[in-house]
Amino acid sequence: MPDQNQIGKSEIVEWFKDLQDSICVSLEGLDESGRFHEDKWNRDGGGGGRTRVIKGQHIEKGGVNFSEVYGEMPEIMAKKLDIPSGQFLASGVSIVLHPKNPWVPIIHMNVRYFEVNDSVWWFGGGIDVTPHYIIDSDARFFHNYLKQVCDQLSENAYAEYKKWADDYFFIPHRNETRGIGGIFFDRLGDRISKDKKEVWNFVKEVGLAFVPIYSHLFENNFTRQYTQTNEKWQRVRRGRYVEFNLVNDRGTKFGLETNGRTESILMSLPPEAHWEYNYEVIKNSLEYRTQNKLRKDVNWLTYKEA
Amino acid sequence: MPDQNQIGKSEIVEWFKDLQDSICVSLEGLDESGRFHEDKWNRDGGGGGRTRVIKGQHIEKGGVNFSEVYGEMPEIMAKKLDIPSGQFLASGVSIVLHPKNPWVPIIHMNVRYFEVNDSVWWFGGGIDVTPHYIIDSDARFFHNYLKQVCDQLSENAYAEYKKWADDYFFIPHRNETRGIGGIFFDRLGDRISKDKKEVWNFVKEVGLAFVPIYSHLFENNFTRQYTQTNEKWQRVRRGRYVEFNLVNDRGTKFGLETNGRTESILMSLPPEAHWEYNYEVIKNSLEYRTQNKLRKDVNWLTYKEA
Repeated sequence: MPDQNQIGKSEIVEWFKDLQDSICVSLEGLDESGRFHEDKWNRDGGGGGRTRVIKGQHIEKGGVNFSEVYGEMPEIMAKKLDIPSGQFLASGVSIVLHPKNPWVPIIHMNVRYFEVNDSVWWFGGGIDVTPHYIIDSDARFFHNYLKQVCDQLSENAYAEYKKWADDYFFIPHRNETRGIGGIFFDRLGDRISKDKKEVWNFVKEVGLAFVPIYSHLFENNFTRQYTQTNEKWQRVRRGRYVEFNLVNDRGTKFGLETNGRTESILMSLPPEAHWEYNYEVIKNSLEYRTQNKLRKDVNWLTYKEA
Repeated sequence: MPDQNQIGKSEIVEWFKDLQDSICVSLEGLDESGRFHEDKWNRDGGGGGRTRVIKGQHIEKGGVNFSEVYGEMPEIMAKKLDIPSGQFLASGVSIVLHPKNPWVPIIHMNVRYFEVNDSVWWFGGGIDVTPHYIIDSDARFFHNYLKQVCDQLSENAYAEYKKWADDYFFIPHRNETRGIGGIFFDRLGDRISKDKKEVWNFVKEVGLAFVPIYSHLFENNFTRQYTQTNEKWQRVRRGRYVEFNLVNDRGTKFGLETNGRTESILMSLPPEAHWEYNYEVIKNSLEYRTQNKLRKDVNWLTYKEA
């Protein structure tokens, strides 16, 4: 079968590489003094990646990964993806940033492409934000930005992918969401039938949304004063981030179980995390108010705390 | 079917409660100033537990849990245990201690009993130690103590349960063991046919071994001076402890997936953990030497670094 709509894999892979490059440049600009360190790695069986990490003055721990792996699909991967084995290609960009200032949120973005035997193909990805302290106006900005991006794909896309994020970024054993969600989508083109050109344009828009979104959230908050209480709460929330990523995140699990590069996968973990037995927030405190907003089905587009 | 060998469930449960009591008293003695705080909890469907936690001067974060849950077995539990549903009882004591001093190891102990319909029954449990720094003489003491305990059950018990611990407390994505292992056993009486009285006596000996073992490891090391390097390495090792418990530990997974009490299950997590991308130890440093000993199949009974 010829490649649908003439979008070749090399075009996609090159675009992902460029995206990694431009995001790294922008983030170095935001951080001012931090610089990305790059590790190039190869995968036995085909392909590899460029893992870039930053330990900056404002971005305490961040990673911007590009990878392009291909070859004969390992049996375990075919089984987990529930597809026949064959020659595969998986490529994408994946980002997690842990800011130093507790008023700046943790952010995660991922765009990815997968194909088998030049016939089955799909895109996946998303952006979501985990504020240590939810700031309503920032939450509204973030979700309205995503809605704009999604509206270019279809009228229902934002509602669907926002719900998908709510369901995905949920921690059942804590009965709370990881943060304020965002958008999440997977297997667009495969399980969810899509025109390749349209979905590729959408995925590019998602990738391009990362810098303006993060710049806004970062610049609004990175100079705010914070206390030891704020820092402790940040470490508690980072602990929950660890719990989600190691217990619930199917992407992390998939990576570890299919023998992905551990350091690139676990780059998402925070620099420091704190666990306290039965940690309880003080009623009506800022921490309490954030905790109570970690729910599914909040309409963040117009959200304002009562 | 009458209870085999006249060991009733109430005898077992009462003994576990007493074990929790006596261990808490001993640990308060070691810590000197810390005192256990108790949370009693009830389980919807039957039973409950006594979660006891300590935030001491030497035990930075510790928990000693007793639980006794019973009732109609949830479908998900029957499925996970691969047994027919019915009236079940699960009871046990579970301990994790995170010491303040990096020279003192993290320790974990668990003894547990399970039965269904008064007919199927088994015991499980084990003790294992996760030193931030492996001290050969302490490792020898620990494994020789366990061998003595196991020898009372059978000639091969130590070798078998030591291997079981090596295999269980292994982190595949790091290709390292969690610590120096110890012993681990499960379903003794069910999948592994055993005389109930003999295995119960063994399980009691394991429970009773905890205090003398930990006292020795604690008293040998708790006054040792330590540096910021030691503390940082402790937080790195604690990070690996988190990874094992959340990614690999079947007990934690079982607890979370069968709707166990989250705070009691995750009591095992350390107070603070640290993740750094591609953390590398300095060649031939103490950290390097510990890292290189985190292997399966080490004969700790006579171990001495070359």
